[in-house]
Amino acid sequence: MLRIIDRQTEAQTELKRIGDRNNGEDIQPKEAIVREIVTKVKQTGDRALLEYTEKFDRQVYTADQLKVTGAELDAAYQQISKDLLSAIQVACQKIEAFHRQRIPKSWVQFDEDEVVLGKRYTPVDRAGLYVPGGRASYPSTVLMNAVPAKVAQVPHIIMVTPPGQDGKINPAVLVAAQEAGIEEIYRVGGAQAVGALAYGTETIPKVDVITGPGNIYVTLAKKMVYGTVGIDSLAGPSEVLIIADEQANPIHVAADLLAQAEHDPMAAAILITTDSNLARQVQHEVSQQLAHHPRKVLTEKAIAHYGLIVVVESLAEAAELSNLFAPEHLELEIADPWDLIEQIRHAGAIFIGNSTPEATGDYLAGPNHTLPTSGAARYASALGVETFMKHSSLIQYSSTALKKMSSTIQILAQAEGLPSHSDSVKFRTE
Amino acid sequence: MLRIIDRQTEAQTELKRIGDRNNGEDIQPKEAIVREIVTKVKQTGDRALLEYTEKFDRQVYTADQLKVTGAELDAAYQQISKDLLSAIQVACQKIEAFHRQRIPKSWVQFDEDEVVLGKRYTPVDRAGLYVPGGRASYPSTVLMNAVPAKVAQVPHIIMVTPPGQDGKINPAVLVAAQEAGIEEIYRVGGAQAVGALAYGTETIPKVDVITGPGNIYVTLAKKMVYGTVGIDSLAGPSEVLIIADEQANPIHVAADLLAQAEHDPMAAAILITTDSNLARQVQHEVSQQLAHHPRKVLTEKAIAHYGLIVVVESLAEAAELSNLFAPEHLELEIADPWDLIEQIRHAGAIFIGNSTPEATGDYLAGPNHTLPTSGAARYASALGVETFMKHSSLIQYSSTALKKMSSTIQILAQAEGLPSHSDSVKFRTE
Repeated sequence: MLRIIDRQTEAQTELKRIGDRNNGEDIQPKEAIVREIVTKVKQTGDRALLEYTEKFDRQVYTADQLKVTGAELDAAYQQISKDLLSAIQVACQKIEAFHRQRIPKSWVQFDEDEVVLGKRYTPVDRAGLYVPGGRASYPSTVLMNAVPAKVAQVPHIIMVTPPGQDGKINPAVLVAAQEAGIEEIYRVGGAQAVGALAYGTETIPKVDVITGPGNIYVTLAKKMVYGTVGIDSLAGPSEVLIIADEQANPIHVAADLLAQAEHDPMAAAILITTDSNLARQVQHEVSQQLAHHPRKVLTEKAIAHYGLIVVVESLAEAAELSNLFAPEHLELEIADPWDLIEQIRHAGAIFIGNSTPEATGDYLAGPNHTLPTSGAARYASALGVETFMKHSSLIQYSSTALKKMSSTIQILAQAEGLPSHSDSVKFRTE
Repeated sequence: MLRIIDRQTEAQTELKRIGDRNNGEDIQPKEAIVREIVTKVKQTGDRALLEYTEKFDRQVYTADQLKVTGAELDAAYQQISKDLLSAIQVACQKIEAFHRQRIPKSWVQFDEDEVVLGKRYTPVDRAGLYVPGGRASYPSTVLMNAVPAKVAQVPHIIMVTPPGQDGKINPAVLVAAQEAGIEEIYRVGGAQAVGALAYGTETIPKVDVITGPGNIYVTLAKKMVYGTVGIDSLAGPSEVLIIADEQANPIHVAADLLAQAEHDPMAAAILITTDSNLARQVQHEVSQQLAHHPRKVLTEKAIAHYGLIVVVESLAEAAELSNLFAPEHLELEIADPWDLIEQIRHAGAIFIGNSTPEATGDYLAGPNHTLPTSGAARYASALGVETFMKHSSLIQYSSTALKKMSSTIQILAQAEGLPSHSDSVKFRTE
């Protein structure tokens, strides 16, 4: 049963508890395991990679079996329905259209005395996309990582994903990869795959950026190799926070809450409403929809531990609680959603109005579904084209400009005790 | 003596060795120390902070002595010269002018069927700036971190910096902070200061983003708390790579190399030139300028271990070697620098032409001097206003648009085995 509370202080405590759900565990033992795996892959390359694939994925490969073959890629198209292929294509096209908006562009400006300043944007040379296996092997994950990398014009994109128990990779994942333009795919997963992408092995090329979600071992491995390579973020379990008023439909709200809870027993599903009737109706409807849910056990777990309905006095109060939680997904199922947006300071994505269930954004609205979790929306944003690009600052001084600034620079350099900084200007302008 | 080599394979090996100079050390013992410090600050707040300040900085404080007082802030203005104050003001103004260019702006686009998509940019609530003490206590560091945070309109910015051996903080640092608009400054440093910013103590507020350089303990602490808060980057020792041809002035090139080497015994200073005469002249000139250098011992160490001159056949070859190294700072002291820029794929900042020593960008040209080191320019960029901002994706569907996309979303949701995702759309459109 989804719990209802209506006291502000209790709400704050509960939201903090749910927001911290990923931090309770002592991760040091897992960090030690990850360190060993990544270090071994760094030191012995393919050998370690094959050993860990046998140990964790129960697949015995030789190095040349790691790469998914052209025949398998072709065959994947025969293994999915035409409807699914069309749906993947529609999603791919719509995600690409959105990501083509406002791509960072190089610029220069000309100041007085012939000074030129600017930024030059370039893509990374190589990107590595991690796609989880098993229950979370999703074609949408592939599109949301591959399309921005393609739009950024990354010349070399590779994908890794662990083989299933039958040694196969989800054909929908293989099709999505190809539709997004990626054909270099390796059947490896876990911390060992992250280590391979960060340091390179005989078979797997070293990349510059690693993106994509994964379990706790994958996440810890990404954190460990951050600095050697760039990473998109440290993904935690998913979450939705819905702000709804009396005009919201409880059946829809309940489905939206369950759409989050069904991901993972650690997922969080929170409703904040100004209407205590709606609270009770949603509570009832969640139980109804759960009764015959195909993923009932895990979904119920999430609802029991990290589900919550908070009844508040005002939408302003709802916005404040939401800012405290800084949700990955925020739905505004209220009469005047745009009026409240100004009060929302932190949210990965905002789904506006009654006709925008989170599933629109999960699949095909266009914006990226890789979003900051566990309160990271306080400082982080969706994965995007920028994740695969970087810029160089451009600075050109003229001799006139340098002369004008010469004494100012020398004063600062001397104050910092850096004589050659000073000399480098003095020698040019004396 | 600065070493000259002219074989391409040796150059690659040497550049790789220098690029990896920060990775040789076994950091695990230091990580363990940092973990203990950060954990203790998280658990016991001010008490741990004061203990570590006594242990590492030899200063015995009570909690209410941590904050720099208004009297100290005022007094700092009396302790620096008028010239230095003016120089700080000029730098502050020029850095701000550059950072005001191309600030991320919120946008929405209207698609067919009344679909609205966009991004809404907001600043973080709180930023924490780390400014090193001792030899590396620089007013320019303050400006380069504080100005972008101010331009991003972060409502609450705090600064931490360790007290000197006399318990004081460099007055130029205090003045730079005030000129940039920051008056909340705490005299704490090291991993303990990073822990305080990440988790908050009774005295120091928890922030959302921590930026600024520091020693290896500070850097490891930033990596450890990354995820709880955002960070700018993991800064390593500084480096310059200069590409010069026969028209370059060896005296200027030598000063630019030494301006890097004088930072730190781990700093790297590399010249790649098409002119073997220039190579020999620069080698000679470096020795000359070093002879009476006030920081001779450490500068010589850097030059001996991580200094290098490479003679190449062509500028194209120089660009390739530079891309391999992905330098923090790249100077192009060649006849047609803009012609080569297209071939530069990775560099934190590019200093163009003979009148643009790195010192221009270090202090006041405008672009940020906090740049990716140790090859991180392959995937990362300068600190900027973006470091202190994030965006929320905006998605609004209409009932018409949702109906049109309903079956496509349901097909994808079913393929991923997520029934409530499907229901959330079906219930709204049936």
